[in-house]
Amino acid sequence: MSIPDKQYGFFYTKADGLKLKEDLPVGKPGPGQLLLKVDAVGLCHSDLHIIYEGLDCGDNYVMGHEIAGSVAALGPETVGFKIGERVACVGPNGCGICRECRAGLDNVCKNAFLDWFGLGYNGGYEQYLLVKRPRNLVRIPDNVTSDQAAAITDAVLTPYHAVKLAGINPTSNVLIIGAGGLGINGIQIAKAFGAKITVLDKKEEARKIVKELGVSVYESLPSDVQPGSFDVCLDFVVVQPTFDLCQKYTKPKGIIIPVGLGAPKVSFDLGDLALREINILGSFWGTSNDLEEAFELVSKGLVTPKVAKAPLKELPTYIKKLKNNEYEGRVVFNP
Amino acid sequence: MSIPDKQYGFFYTKADGLKLKEDLPVGKPGPGQLLLKVDAVGLCHSDLHIIYEGLDCGDNYVMGHEIAGSVAALGPETVGFKIGERVACVGPNGCGICRECRAGLDNVCKNAFLDWFGLGYNGGYEQYLLVKRPRNLVRIPDNVTSDQAAAITDAVLTPYHAVKLAGINPTSNVLIIGAGGLGINGIQIAKAFGAKITVLDKKEEARKIVKELGVSVYESLPSDVQPGSFDVCLDFVVVQPTFDLCQKYTKPKGIIIPVGLGAPKVSFDLGDLALREINILGSFWGTSNDLEEAFELVSKGLVTPKVAKAPLKELPTYIKKLKNNEYEGRVVFNP
Amino acid sequence: MSIPDKQYGFFYTKADGLKLKEDLPVGKPGPGQLLLKVDAVGLCHSDLHIIYEGLDCGDNYVMGHEIAGSVAALGPETVGFKIGERVACVGPNGCGICRECRAGLDNVCKNAFLDWFGLGYNGGYEQYLLVKRPRNLVRIPDNVTSDQAAAITDAVLTPYHAVKLAGINPTSNVLIIGAGGLGINGIQIAKAFGAKITVLDKKEEARKIVKELGVSVYESLPSDVQPGSFDVCLDFVVVQPTFDLCQKYTKPKGIIIPVGLGAPKVSFDLGDLALREINILGSFWGTSNDLEEAFELVSKGLVTPKVAKAPLKELPTYIKKLKNNEYEGRVVFNP
Amino acid sequence: MSIPDKQYGFFYTKADGLKLKEDLPVGKPGPGQLLLKVDAVGLCHSDLHIIYEGLDCGDNYVMGHEIAGSVAALGPETVGFKIGERVACVGPNGCGICRECRAGLDNVCKNAFLDWFGLGYNGGYEQYLLVKRPRNLVRIPDNVTSDQAAAITDAVLTPYHAVKLAGINPTSNVLIIGAGGLGINGIQIAKAFGAKITVLDKKEEARKIVKELGVSVYESLPSDVQPGSFDVCLDFVVVQPTFDLCQKYTKPKGIIIPVGLGAPKVSFDLGDLALREINILGSFWGTSNDLEEAFELVSKGLVTPKVAKAPLKELPTYIKKLKNNEYEGRVVFNP
Repeated sequence: MSIPDKQYGFFYTKADGLKLKEDLPVGKPGPGQLLLKVDAVGLCHSDLHIIYEGLDCGDNYVMGHEIAGSVAALGPETVGFKIGERVACVGPNGCGICRECRAGLDNVCKNAFLDWFGLGYNGGYEQYLLVKRPRNLVRIPDNVTSDQAAAITDAVLTPYHAVKLAGINPTSNVLIIGAGGLGINGIQIAKAFGAKITVLDKKEEARKIVKELGVSVYESLPSDVQPGSFDVCLDFVVVQPTFDLCQKYTKPKGIIIPVGLGAPKVSFDLGDLALREINILGSFWGTSNDLEEAFELVSKGLVTPKVAKAPLKELPTYIKKLKNNEYEGRVVFNP
Repeated sequence: MSIPDKQYGFFYTKADGLKLKEDLPVGKPGPGQLLLKVDAVGLCHSDLHIIYEGLDCGDNYVMGHEIAGSVAALGPETVGFKIGERVACVGPNGCGICRECRAGLDNVCKNAFLDWFGLGYNGGYEQYLLVKRPRNLVRIPDNVTSDQAAAITDAVLTPYHAVKLAGINPTSNVLIIGAGGLGINGIQIAKAFGAKITVLDKKEEARKIVKELGVSVYESLPSDVQPGSFDVCLDFVVVQPTFDLCQKYTKPKGIIIPVGLGAPKVSFDLGDLALREINILGSFWGTSNDLEEAFELVSKGLVTPKVAKAPLKELPTYIKKLKNNEYEGRVVFNP
Repeated sequence: MSIPDKQYGFFYTKADGLKLKEDLPVGKPGPGQLLLKVDAVGLCHSDLHIIYEGLDCGDNYVMGHEIAGSVAALGPETVGFKIGERVACVGPNGCGICRECRAGLDNVCKNAFLDWFGLGYNGGYEQYLLVKRPRNLVRIPDNVTSDQAAAITDAVLTPYHAVKLAGINPTSNVLIIGAGGLGINGIQIAKAFGAKITVLDKKEEARKIVKELGVSVYESLPSDVQPGSFDVCLDFVVVQPTFDLCQKYTKPKGIIIPVGLGAPKVSFDLGDLALREINILGSFWGTSNDLEEAFELVSKGLVTPKVAKAPLKELPTYIKKLKNNEYEGRVVFNP
Repeated sequence: MSIPDKQYGFFYTKADGLKLKEDLPVGKPGPGQLLLKVDAVGLCHSDLHIIYEGLDCGDNYVMGHEIAGSVAALGPETVGFKIGERVACVGPNGCGICRECRAGLDNVCKNAFLDWFGLGYNGGYEQYLLVKRPRNLVRIPDNVTSDQAAAITDAVLTPYHAVKLAGINPTSNVLIIGAGGLGINGIQIAKAFGAKITVLDKKEEARKIVKELGVSVYESLPSDVQPGSFDVCLDFVVVQPTFDLCQKYTKPKGIIIPVGLGAPKVSFDLGDLALREINILGSFWGTSNDLEEAFELVSKGLVTPKVAKAPLKELPTYIKKLKNNEYEGRVVFNP
């Protein structure tokens, strides 16, 4: 495989936003590093927050944080990978040596804060990605496509991590708010963990897809559902009204995980939180082990992420469509 | 011991507030029940919330929720207690048979909600208290006075439960905000668990007492303390500024326990909660096992609750003093 | 419903073993107690240990520890139950007030040790059972028969408790040894928790039933299974060779739960236990909450216990058959 | 600092045992590696098992697994360390990238099995040690000497890991068997966690040292101690009689951690393990985070490891002394 010196990609600067560049350098892997040929890269709502709302994830980097690729070149002393192997990137890109990484929490590594793939550090909206820490690559199972793999790195990984954090099992009564790109996978994952699930979504189209999974879904909670009914509430939207619903309908000792980022701040009722010992747990993306496990679930057929695809150069069109709510589900791009 | 038919006590109604009554009936214990002679009962800030701010804990009951007494009479079939034995009340008064009680969570028993001693159900501002469920009585160790015991049932139990919930150990770096009646015991308990502790309190008098315990204490955090430094933040105040401090200074994967009830609602930064996987855990009073353990800590000398005492009839005077911030620490009353 | 004064039942004494008696007294429920009309009662291997091997579970009691019945009479002050309601007994019969019961561990209640239903205290091999502590009764869901319910109280509850203790989820790789009366339910439960399961059983008949569940089953482990492969090993047999297999094939940090009682003692390799941090967890029957959850799983169709039935007076015949391995599965008797 | 090409050290082969060699090569650190000048190295009972009992930890390596040193040379691309910095080795030498390491369990890394410092891989009985994975080095706090640091890497780390695994806190009632090199530190650590401790040791000398710590110590358990009394039993000896004692005196749901390796196998009573849900937890050395925390405890004065010292060339004399039980406590050697 001959690797070019230059490539095209979508580069972000605070000054100019996201721009196509045709002469981005292709990185040369140093010792312990490797070069990834990007095969598929997903578009995510977080990208819109950066582009349109000025969400600060650093300056001067190639965006695109849902990345699947194949190993194109190995740096000197880089072991454990073969040229051509298909791998996906663990977005949080943990350093592997700090206290958090050593404790199994590489998704909240302090050293890698905003050094995440496509969010501070270069990502997948380019042809070749230099990977500084190959520990943050996970092999893609044979029966999972690279397109699916790209979507799995966020749209499956994020809900998987949240479901695992919540300790869901067949006795859990779970409320899921929002059956969009992440929520729909969260529903399948919670099902694989055996839970009884109730889903809320405002969109009829989304509810239809949930129904096909054989899961109870409503526009708003039926009146016979009592406050204090759910062991776990996974909120994939998170604005004040959805969070209030979670607090009201969570059991004593229940768990609320705000997965979505629909509002900058939400408030909780302090007395109720205390009296019923409700737990609000932050959940961020997923660990490297979680990504391996997420692949396992997909490989076993327990979760089936749906993806549409397009050439990478059409990214700007799709960004606009996503902004205007003109499509459902996940789109991945092939450079 | 001859038990009178009538007694005096402080009875609360929503219409008239808290009033001394001289002719309250003395309960007759039914099967499985017992009658407690109240030896000591503590005054707490929550009482003020009910009396002055209309906090709704039901109507028509004798207040006073920090109760130590001695067994005065046993109902038919009541076993496991001897006349004269000294016991203290587990405030949350769990039913013992619901799912939560069977799971070890009798502090959040749904059946006993607002059927708490002195908060919905009758409490200790009277001479004799009818105890419907003697399971909610814990023996007082010989080397603990009844005055101390009364204070322990809330001012030690509540912070003990929170410290245990937080999983504090000798590697924990703990921030405690507020060194008042509960906070000062929380500090001693966290010390017994081996933690490194930093305390914040606005009052010089409170800081002086903390210093005597050999614990670092400040009016505000020293500038060399980095954000993201504490494993656990116990907030015994909880207004927006103290809660914001907790969120800012909590480590990735850290725990915030809002113990105080200084504001009806507080908000959190959603992005930060997620990105650093911060956990906000509700903590309510304590379980019956916790109260046993809290007594054990006091009995071993690991925590020394300080109490002043007064005759029960002087309660109204002390309620006013507490409202006007005219005394520090815990006062218990002897009927 | 008219309740007789006398009844028949199978009474055990150390001197005479298990004997049919036609004039056993029918208990009169005291305050807080109730009388259960026994509708179905299961026969279990443990019964054989008592009858033939002198396993010491006390003296002078009616045996039969898998009990479903309907409420026949309420004692004075007994609340929470209606005449005719169908309920099942939580075998460990916890006292509800000791430290263990208050901590959610009513299956290891010290006060109820050998005061278990049909094992020390009277059980279900009789027509009417006096229940001292109705807290140890769990309602039977409408779509679960009393015959099934009897079997569920042990043959589902015991493996359910073990699976829950092991923390099984869809990423768990689980080895189950023994697909007999308990094992076959354990397999279904572990499946409901999402696990990947490998089963070993020496009997072809048992393996056939496992295959019908769509689970991998072998006479002995295939040679391509590596030592250190399983997160969890549930041993429903437990003799030295099966336990050795568990230790060898458990992962670092893996869990072995010896559910069966095939040998009085088994040994483990100390160096290996340490070096790979293997955990051996004792698991006993189940808690009252577990029984509720076990019923929930059966009610949802996630576990289907199979039971044959016979008149209670035929019990002696079936005891001999069970001893001689002449039937598979669970038999319940109707008095 | 000039680094020689050759050095002396004690090299182990299965054929010849442990021999002093004067011409061992000094390693040259490759990319990401570093060279450690050994400042202090401890002698441990495990060394005797290898030398005298043929314990198999591989062949052809320099022994010595309790190592403190200072950074002598950095390989190319090695970052995060400065020449001269004092560091100690995390014995289990985890790979950092396998599933176990990523889960925070680098002490049971499968890739590093018998690639441990001084146990399979080269250790500290030499002047310079080549460190392949500097992630397994932990900084030594300023107020801890290198001699202490060497001892801490095993004689403090191992009991620290066990105490943490057992979840000890101020309500724990703990039995510790054996107050030797590791046990005496285990006692101090359990004390720092707030536990109530009872110690057993056959040697009067050892009991004297325990008494000085203000901890209850006996030759055998006093007759007023009831079976089922301890939440946690840490057995630093582990032969059948000590293990039997642990099982008998552990509470329902209690934890036994066999830390010592006094016998190759021990057996447990299966019925009792089940009925009382006793947990036997394997505990191996400690993780890299544990070593950091162990240093923290020593630095704070909560644990004070006692060490004697000698020149490294006198190692053979001390090995004989240790074998003949001719000294107590820990000896570290300075090359």
